[in-house]
Amino acid sequence: MKTDIEIAREAKMLPITEIGAKLGLLPEDLLPYGHDKAKVTHAKLADLADRPTGNLILVTAISPTPPGEGKTTTTVGLADALSRIGKQVSVCIREASLGPNFGMKGGAAGGGMAQIVPMEDMNLHFTGDFHAVTSAHNLLAAMIDNHLHWGNVLRIDPRRVSWRRVMDVNDRALRDAIIGLGGTKNGHSRETGFDITAASEVMAILCLASDLDDLEARLGRIVIGESFNRDPVTAAQLGAAGAMTVLLKDALQPNLVQTLENTPAFVHGGPFANIAHGCNTLVATRAAMQLSDYVVTEAGFGADLGAEKFFDIVCRVGELEPAAVVLVATVRALKYNGGVAVDDLSVENVPALVAGCANLGRHIENLRRFGVPVVVAINHFTADTEDEIHALQSYCARHGAKAVVSKHWAEGGAGAEELGRAVVDLVEAGDAEFEVLYPTDAPLTEKIETVAKKIYHAESVYFPTAVRNQLAAWEESGFGHFPVCLAKTQYSFSADPKALGAPEGFEIPIREVRLSAGAGFVVALVGEIMTMPGLPRHPAAERIRLDDGDVVGLF
Amino acid sequence: MKTDIEIAREAKMLPITEIGAKLGLLPEDLLPYGHDKAKVTHAKLADLADRPTGNLILVTAISPTPPGEGKTTTTVGLADALSRIGKQVSVCIREASLGPNFGMKGGAAGGGMAQIVPMEDMNLHFTGDFHAVTSAHNLLAAMIDNHLHWGNVLRIDPRRVSWRRVMDVNDRALRDAIIGLGGTKNGHSRETGFDITAASEVMAILCLASDLDDLEARLGRIVIGESFNRDPVTAAQLGAAGAMTVLLKDALQPNLVQTLENTPAFVHGGPFANIAHGCNTLVATRAAMQLSDYVVTEAGFGADLGAEKFFDIVCRVGELEPAAVVLVATVRALKYNGGVAVDDLSVENVPALVAGCANLGRHIENLRRFGVPVVVAINHFTADTEDEIHALQSYCARHGAKAVVSKHWAEGGAGAEELGRAVVDLVEAGDAEFEVLYPTDAPLTEKIETVAKKIYHAESVYFPTAVRNQLAAWEESGFGHFPVCLAKTQYSFSADPKALGAPEGFEIPIREVRLSAGAGFVVALVGEIMTMPGLPRHPAAERIRLDDGDVVGLF
Repeated sequence: MKTDIEIAREAKMLPITEIGAKLGLLPEDLLPYGHDKAKVTHAKLADLADRPTGNLILVTAISPTPPGEGKTTTTVGLADALSRIGKQVSVCIREASLGPNFGMKGGAAGGGMAQIVPMEDMNLHFTGDFHAVTSAHNLLAAMIDNHLHWGNVLRIDPRRVSWRRVMDVNDRALRDAIIGLGGTKNGHSRETGFDITAASEVMAILCLASDLDDLEARLGRIVIGESFNRDPVTAAQLGAAGAMTVLLKDALQPNLVQTLENTPAFVHGGPFANIAHGCNTLVATRAAMQLSDYVVTEAGFGADLGAEKFFDIVCRVGELEPAAVVLVATVRALKYNGGVAVDDLSVENVPALVAGCANLGRHIENLRRFGVPVVVAINHFTADTEDEIHALQSYCARHGAKAVVSKHWAEGGAGAEELGRAVVDLVEAGDAEFEVLYPTDAPLTEKIETVAKKIYHAESVYFPTAVRNQLAAWEESGFGHFPVCLAKTQYSFSADPKALGAPEGFEIPIREVRLSAGAGFVVALVGEIMTMPGLPRHPAAERIRLDDGDVVGLF
Repeated sequence: MKTDIEIAREAKMLPITEIGAKLGLLPEDLLPYGHDKAKVTHAKLADLADRPTGNLILVTAISPTPPGEGKTTTTVGLADALSRIGKQVSVCIREASLGPNFGMKGGAAGGGMAQIVPMEDMNLHFTGDFHAVTSAHNLLAAMIDNHLHWGNVLRIDPRRVSWRRVMDVNDRALRDAIIGLGGTKNGHSRETGFDITAASEVMAILCLASDLDDLEARLGRIVIGESFNRDPVTAAQLGAAGAMTVLLKDALQPNLVQTLENTPAFVHGGPFANIAHGCNTLVATRAAMQLSDYVVTEAGFGADLGAEKFFDIVCRVGELEPAAVVLVATVRALKYNGGVAVDDLSVENVPALVAGCANLGRHIENLRRFGVPVVVAINHFTADTEDEIHALQSYCARHGAKAVVSKHWAEGGAGAEELGRAVVDLVEAGDAEFEVLYPTDAPLTEKIETVAKKIYHAESVYFPTAVRNQLAAWEESGFGHFPVCLAKTQYSFSADPKALGAPEGFEIPIREVRLSAGAGFVVALVGEIMTMPGLPRHPAAERIRLDDGDVVGLF
């Protein structure tokens, strides 16, 4: 068996201008980064504004399990399959964060015969978007401390500055720090810390902005903390939004690369999927829809988190109307949900599979609430037995969803053609009537309760008094119309990562709420969220090196 | 009068592939970054290894003054002039640091009709080299704290970790910080801080490395601090060099852009000119020499600092033999050196000019020590009178150097043709017999004394006992063969920035010494050196914004 990186290195990549040509893009519509990566220019994006848009397909998955589901792999394989059956198609996914690759290991975008390339670049600096986010974020941070240093006209309370700094490296020592030491010339001492770049609100903003003007407006609305009389202080008040926009102007242009089968792929933006919405940029998805008949995209984690945020945040903000949803499941992951230990997942176990299907069933039911038709993709593993697949397909049929076996990992797009045809059937039936889960004008507590009860199936939601007061204060300050972004364990519908399947009767405790006023949502934290990872005892960085020009140890 | 940015925006740029073609580079030898920037591939650099090299011209200047000398402008104008008189030529300069542009303001590379473009890109992210340096530097920092966290096998003394972190932003609050707060999970608390990226030893290494292998070896030799028993601890011992090399592999490829007159320009690397050597990368200079008959490059600050470091560090390391030196002076700057106040510099004053020529004369004399012939470029200002220019030319003639009036600022290459011909005459006379100032195997104190006495004309050098002991310890540890890099005020030959002209009889006090074992030099600090600037009360960032796609406020 070849590894992902071996397969990726053997890819017959087309020049990026030829990939652009598949979308009707001329060489001058592209800003090349090397010969295999390009950005679509702002000028071209503006040209596209009035184009009719293609069909948007969301790929999501059951609750994540240790054996993995292969969501990105399915996203890529489906796009290649649609291309094979004659559709003009693009795929849209997130960019990888550079920092963590030096901790554990970098990864393919997809896997097996269903990957996006060039893999090395995508795991390193790529086109510099993350660095631009880091620069813009930290410029604002420097301007805050500079403002404190030069007399603090805005009367910012240094104890209530919530804007931290970011760096795209796993560096636990930077989580909590005291800065401004060393005397008067170095400003005021205060406690703060660093997050990883993917956790920056600037990243979330980049991913939700519709164009440069909207980007600047959103950056200006960032609340960096509070004044001594508890009023929110914004980036606009510090005069930072224009300069931040200048730093991000190139980064807002979508990155175009390709799959192993030369299907156009937009890889753009990389926000966290817990404290942010976890999807690629709206700009990329919109451009892809204007340039293609079919667009396949994905959302972070399982459907309870990723798809919900995609629908309630991204589609709401971007006025997108998905035409179909692909829900990825594997026989192995469902057996795990049914109580089978990781080491025993290769052994046939139909009863456990059927028990685990409760998880799948609830996701199907949830997705239907959004009015979008669902097809289940059974991402095939060689150990899957015919009886298991039959049982899984029967379960899905009973729940009103077709389930298609897809062999894209082993066979590329050819192995996903049946899935592709199933998606086309759903789209052409035209049954989608997309609607968001809750109205924009509902109170913030009600929005959180709606997600927790309707999607997670919680019995109750616990709001500590401080949280209730904070949400009320934000509604008072004019942030009540924001959608909510719940940061919860991805491993269970509940707050307990060990409660697999389809738990019932639990409480969702809201520990803390955070305002992302620029991104335009309120984050409700159910558990502790790590926003700056650390390196392991022996980080991958110790093994990563160049070997005759090839990067080794990164994968 | 048009501003530099207005002139730059009106530039008729050629596609970067056409600029490459002027050097015999094929499209596949270039990695494009947009249509007006490219990197020359490692593969092509390797191909060039055995090529004969063209003539290297160093542009340096008298001691810097508030009215400015126009060193980069002359560098660019001379290259354009050489091109006009039929030479195949490239220009090599440093990259701008992004961070400070948001403090005061960004700048042109050159000025008037003698500039390198695209100006906006070069003042923003350019091709991402600075971000790569930041990433590599901070990965090593994270690996140090990670090593302390996971048991500290190397017995690193946390109090003696000299490796700080870097960020390309002016942020005084980060100069001194305590990190690792917040309990066990966040590692060990210790005091450290941040420098600006240009001050990173990784930047100096990138600029002195000959290829990827040498880069990795140099990164491995970085001394990050000391163990409890005072032994140096290296990046190689932490296993960081391979991963840092991977992060820097693209950055080591020289960036190709162009002048307003479409002369090929390599803009690559940007180390500090005090705690480092202040020149563009050796890789770029070498590639330019392999691809062109004439290469014009420059060194930071005045000739006492910049040219000395270029000769004693860069040329020594890179085995370069410069063919000629252009020493830039202006009538205004010499009058300032002769005691005229800034406001009166536009009034004719021949006696003050002649008095100020003492500064010029000493630089001429110093440059001759290196065995390279010198021509003085009088960078023309409209207020210069004929009598002043005549007096200046007579002074130079008496000191054995031709002085040529150059009007490249107003007229571009056409205005510098006489200078170009003077340079060609020097080169074709073939009188250069380059030699470094001091032998590699001299003791470190002797090297410092040689520079201070022969170049600065100091009467004595003061070494505190701790400094003497430190230098002796480094010689003991095998670093005695390093050249020295003196960090001194650039405004005077002495340690007193107010002592203009050609002061005598002063002492050079060495305050502190620092080891740059990867870059391969010992830094001797004569004064306080600021390695992390702050933002002013009203930073440029408050005015920088996009206006209909154009960046305003940055210049």
